[in-house]
Amino acid sequence: MRTLDAVLNRIDQDIDQSLERLFALLRIASVSTDPAYKAQCRAAAEHVAADLRTIGFDTKVRPTEGHPVVVGKSNGATGPDVLFYGHYDVQPVDPLDLWKTPPFEPRIETLPGGRKIIVARGACDDKGQAMTFIEACRAFKAVTGKLPLNITTMIEGEEECGSINLPKFVRDNAAEFKLDLALVCDTAMWNAETPSVTTSLRGLVYEEVKVTCADRDLHSGLFGGAAQNPLRLLSKILGAMWDDNGKVTIPGFYDGVKELPSDIKADLTALNLTADEFLGQVGLKIPSGEKGRLVLEQTTTRPTAEINGIVGGYTGEGAKTVIPGQATAKVSFRLVGEQDPEKIRDNFRAFVYARMPADCKVEFANFGLAPPLQLSFDNPALTKARAVLAEEWGHKAVAVGAGGSIPIVADFKQVLGMDSLLVGFALDDDRVHSPNEKFDLKCFHKGIRSWARIIDALAEN
Amino acid sequence: MRTLDAVLNRIDQDIDQSLERLFALLRIASVSTDPAYKAQCRAAAEHVAADLRTIGFDTKVRPTEGHPVVVGKSNGATGPDVLFYGHYDVQPVDPLDLWKTPPFEPRIETLPGGRKIIVARGACDDKGQAMTFIEACRAFKAVTGKLPLNITTMIEGEEECGSINLPKFVRDNAAEFKLDLALVCDTAMWNAETPSVTTSLRGLVYEEVKVTCADRDLHSGLFGGAAQNPLRLLSKILGAMWDDNGKVTIPGFYDGVKELPSDIKADLTALNLTADEFLGQVGLKIPSGEKGRLVLEQTTTRPTAEINGIVGGYTGEGAKTVIPGQATAKVSFRLVGEQDPEKIRDNFRAFVYARMPADCKVEFANFGLAPPLQLSFDNPALTKARAVLAEEWGHKAVAVGAGGSIPIVADFKQVLGMDSLLVGFALDDDRVHSPNEKFDLKCFHKGIRSWARIIDALAEN
Repeated sequence: MRTLDAVLNRIDQDIDQSLERLFALLRIASVSTDPAYKAQCRAAAEHVAADLRTIGFDTKVRPTEGHPVVVGKSNGATGPDVLFYGHYDVQPVDPLDLWKTPPFEPRIETLPGGRKIIVARGACDDKGQAMTFIEACRAFKAVTGKLPLNITTMIEGEEECGSINLPKFVRDNAAEFKLDLALVCDTAMWNAETPSVTTSLRGLVYEEVKVTCADRDLHSGLFGGAAQNPLRLLSKILGAMWDDNGKVTIPGFYDGVKELPSDIKADLTALNLTADEFLGQVGLKIPSGEKGRLVLEQTTTRPTAEINGIVGGYTGEGAKTVIPGQATAKVSFRLVGEQDPEKIRDNFRAFVYARMPADCKVEFANFGLAPPLQLSFDNPALTKARAVLAEEWGHKAVAVGAGGSIPIVADFKQVLGMDSLLVGFALDDDRVHSPNEKFDLKCFHKGIRSWARIIDALAEN
Repeated sequence: MRTLDAVLNRIDQDIDQSLERLFALLRIASVSTDPAYKAQCRAAAEHVAADLRTIGFDTKVRPTEGHPVVVGKSNGATGPDVLFYGHYDVQPVDPLDLWKTPPFEPRIETLPGGRKIIVARGACDDKGQAMTFIEACRAFKAVTGKLPLNITTMIEGEEECGSINLPKFVRDNAAEFKLDLALVCDTAMWNAETPSVTTSLRGLVYEEVKVTCADRDLHSGLFGGAAQNPLRLLSKILGAMWDDNGKVTIPGFYDGVKELPSDIKADLTALNLTADEFLGQVGLKIPSGEKGRLVLEQTTTRPTAEINGIVGGYTGEGAKTVIPGQATAKVSFRLVGEQDPEKIRDNFRAFVYARMPADCKVEFANFGLAPPLQLSFDNPALTKARAVLAEEWGHKAVAVGAGGSIPIVADFKQVLGMDSLLVGFALDDDRVHSPNEKFDLKCFHKGIRSWARIIDALAEN
């Protein structure tokens, strides 16, 4: 029997105990954003550390300015050296009255049709997902007495409140964490049958634009027709950011944006995600992005511009004939490929400045400057992971981009120069961050098996 | 001695008594918008009625749903028949602590340089202005025993809270008030030396535009690039309302807008109001209106479009990567000449509808639909008034448009088919609606003389 088959068998036999270990972690109310739960966060870290030690990880609960990070090390294999990232903290549970059962009393529910789900806060995000990796390690250890890779775990406690202390922790200990590859289990599958590897995360530039015209609010009867209006300027300038084909018109905006490799594009096309299907869930049907692009490209592998907010003038009931002195907009850009956040910010500001009358003023504030992340499509780890995920799930694993960002992964790339392989088993209906969060038992079980296969594949050199 | 000269002499001799009568009215705190002052409003109406009776007006304090209207009639002259409109109510006085002396204790203050001003709430708006007309009548009565015109006064008590009950009062008594001409004293002079007749008031269309895209707020990481954004739509659509020359692009917008007669335009040009002078007072200097037009045209005799408010998405501190489901704008138009408010409203709505994607929704609400008013430049009353104002003030009287509107004047035109001659003596520094409201003693005195001249001129057939 191949080692891997023995490990997979062990996982199947041990699944009830795996579940019990997950439940033990789920019972700890490690809500990171609320200071009232500080002790529970500490307890969750200690719990994870103790568990890792049972698999032979040399583990420490290491302090930060906020909640601690659980760092475990298992060395002695021939390599490669990988970092596993996950988080033990969870979102708040309110509104509590919408939970069918208490959020920190995990249970198995059988849905009509026989589908079994694990219900609890953190069942999926990220305790359940993180445990898929830990349980895979446990099975290797049980079968072979060791792990086939050198693995360092970094299980943090502040992901749900912005990972505010982790970047410094990574920077301060760069030599320790700069390994060959990061493995991350905090993303979703394409659907319940189709596994996926997230190969890109969009970057973000977030700008606030404040336009000042007159030095006070004016009466439109007296000044209307002569005095410039900041809402007119904002509308004219921001409205000019897109052409009639949905392309962003800011000069240089598409610098560094590459076309997908044809095989990857063919895979995405084959997924056949229609605009009706994707936008229909929110009451829309006509894609607003670049014409001629798949919806999946528009939302993941193409850059975008959005107006996230505008406020100015009179916004109450009825009428007030005011010309406001000032108006403000929030504008953000999702970046891909090699787009440079600082250049995008500068080009956007130049675009606005160029359209401002000489007697009006514009001020900018930046609230985000994160580069996009792209795992090379040539990375052998990606090829291996896709292959073994297909074996486990019986469907080709798709390489998809994610529309949002996971900031710490950007730090792995920028600070440590390390690529990340993002594999996750969440489903769209997991109610992550919402009441009655769940994780499919099948996703948990096959997630453990998936990581066993990936670890095995990565160990083969 | 001509009758008019005798009347003007009488006005000069009686000015201290005229001032004492104005002070008596100013002492009544007739704040119409605050129910706590209901009795004072009634008292002011009774006071005005009693005063009119002393000049021989058959006067009644007539009820409305709100504060009463003082209607006085003096007939028996050969004509023409004129309606005089003014109001006895005043604005609230807060912030009270900014008043140098109590607002309802009128006083004369001598400014450095010797200029004398009447300080009190209502000194100008409109008790002081209304009394210029009443005192002119009184002088005629004292000198000749009668008035040279048939005059009906309509002194209302709700102008400062929107004249909400007056339109119905006018409609219900249309036969009584449908006279040859309305005289209104509630406007300003061009400057302290130059009298003016207001020959046009801009109309108003006020629309609220609510755009709905997705049926909920969306995360820009997940949906950005595919889901339509109502702020993008509003910016694109509203930003397209002006071309690069400041002209409004809505089809049919300029239908019914006429050029000024060349002599009137020459008068306006001669006033030499520069953009620096007009816009400099609010920190601006570049006119935003139609290129090639005088600032005075842009603000009074040309139509405009304004965005009075926009709100949508995230408007708090910092960043939130939301694509709002809904956003709202307030948009208004100032109308001139023969522009039809209903057509402008419909054309604007069509302009928006034509630019909406089929899967998004727009709803409109109307908060204003007032036609523009234009006194014919050929009206003999205008010619007469300009001539005698020039005699009184020693400067040519300009015929100017006002940028805002006086709604009841529109009713005089629409309901009664009656033109209005708007002559007023306010100055730009009168602090109308603000603490320490004032009226120049010279404006009060020469205002009385001006009305005596106008009444005399109108009586000459």
